[in-house]
Amino acid sequence: MKYGIVAFPSKRLQDLANTYRKRYDSHYSKITPHITLKEAFEADDHEINRISQTVASIAQNYGPLAIHASRISSFFPTTNVIYFKIEPTEQLKNLHEDIQQQLNIGQPKHVFIPHITIAQDLTETEHGDIFGQLRMVGVDEQETIDRIHLVYQLEDGSWTTYETFRLTGAK
Amino acid sequence: MKYGIVAFPSKRLQDLANTYRKRYDSHYSKITPHITLKEAFEADDHEINRISQTVASIAQNYGPLAIHASRISSFFPTTNVIYFKIEPTEQLKNLHEDIQQQLNIGQPKHVFIPHITIAQDLTETEHGDIFGQLRMVGVDEQETIDRIHLVYQLEDGSWTTYETFRLTGAK
Repeated sequence: MKYGIVAFPSKRLQDLANTYRKRYDSHYSKITPHITLKEAFEADDHEINRISQTVASIAQNYGPLAIHASRISSFFPTTNVIYFKIEPTEQLKNLHEDIQQQLNIGQPKHVFIPHITIAQDLTETEHGDIFGQLRMVGVDEQETIDRIHLVYQLEDGSWTTYETFRLTGAK
Repeated sequence: MKYGIVAFPSKRLQDLANTYRKRYDSHYSKITPHITLKEAFEADDHEINRISQTVASIAQNYGPLAIHASRISSFFPTTNVIYFKIEPTEQLKNLHEDIQQQLNIGQPKHVFIPHITIAQDLTETEHGDIFGQLRMVGVDEQETIDRIHLVYQLEDGSWTTYETFRLTGAK
């Protein structure tokens, strides 16, 4: 089964992201807006118990995540993904690194650039038009996220939460 | 904010339900297949803490839910909803009643008939055709569900998990 680890921002910020996603994001209906902390990986029923315990112990070390969605950016030309840039704090980088090292499942495909995707699978022309508009609108939202989620994927591509972990620590 | 309490069945049973839902269920993209334990209710940030604690204490009393999706049934003529009937065990009835009484938020709109919706918002003709086909196909799946989820709704109608509760008791 395919799992991932994400942080869902507040309803307010998810609603804002969805105003764009419903028009521009091909994954709109598969999962609600989120920050990916660990990209999709394979695990069986046995492994997921160990993984779940590891994530629980990591979550106990971290306090609520202070996040700042500071502007609308794009991964172009690597991919035509447009996103809310989340300022890469030490806290986020450390959390990402702890998850990566302690789970020890595969290498990350990319450098960790915390973000909330709002558009993807656009043609180059669409990307140019839409990014041109959205970067002018921008985003500036600050909040805290007090939990992270271990999610799994169904055959149709949609994601369901397997478990939530409150961030109850001090890091 | 609007909250609800649900139990997600296994990936296997969710995938099976989705083979029908993608064609026949207007809510297909809003939430993955589930058994509703408490219908949508309003709560603010303050109330949800108390509610979350109450659900946690209930979940500690119950063991994993033994469920049996035994046939494909319909709420017609009350509504044109077609569903996997989940056999109404004492365990499910007690869990539903504990949630209802201890949360004490609104009266249930219907008698509790545990089910997984696979079709809704059909015309009467569509309902007749599709139910005629599906009741012959039927369903017969048994499994256990070891956790329940408190979920909240975004403005676009989609649901995100707020918290998961493992069923770690003996009831």
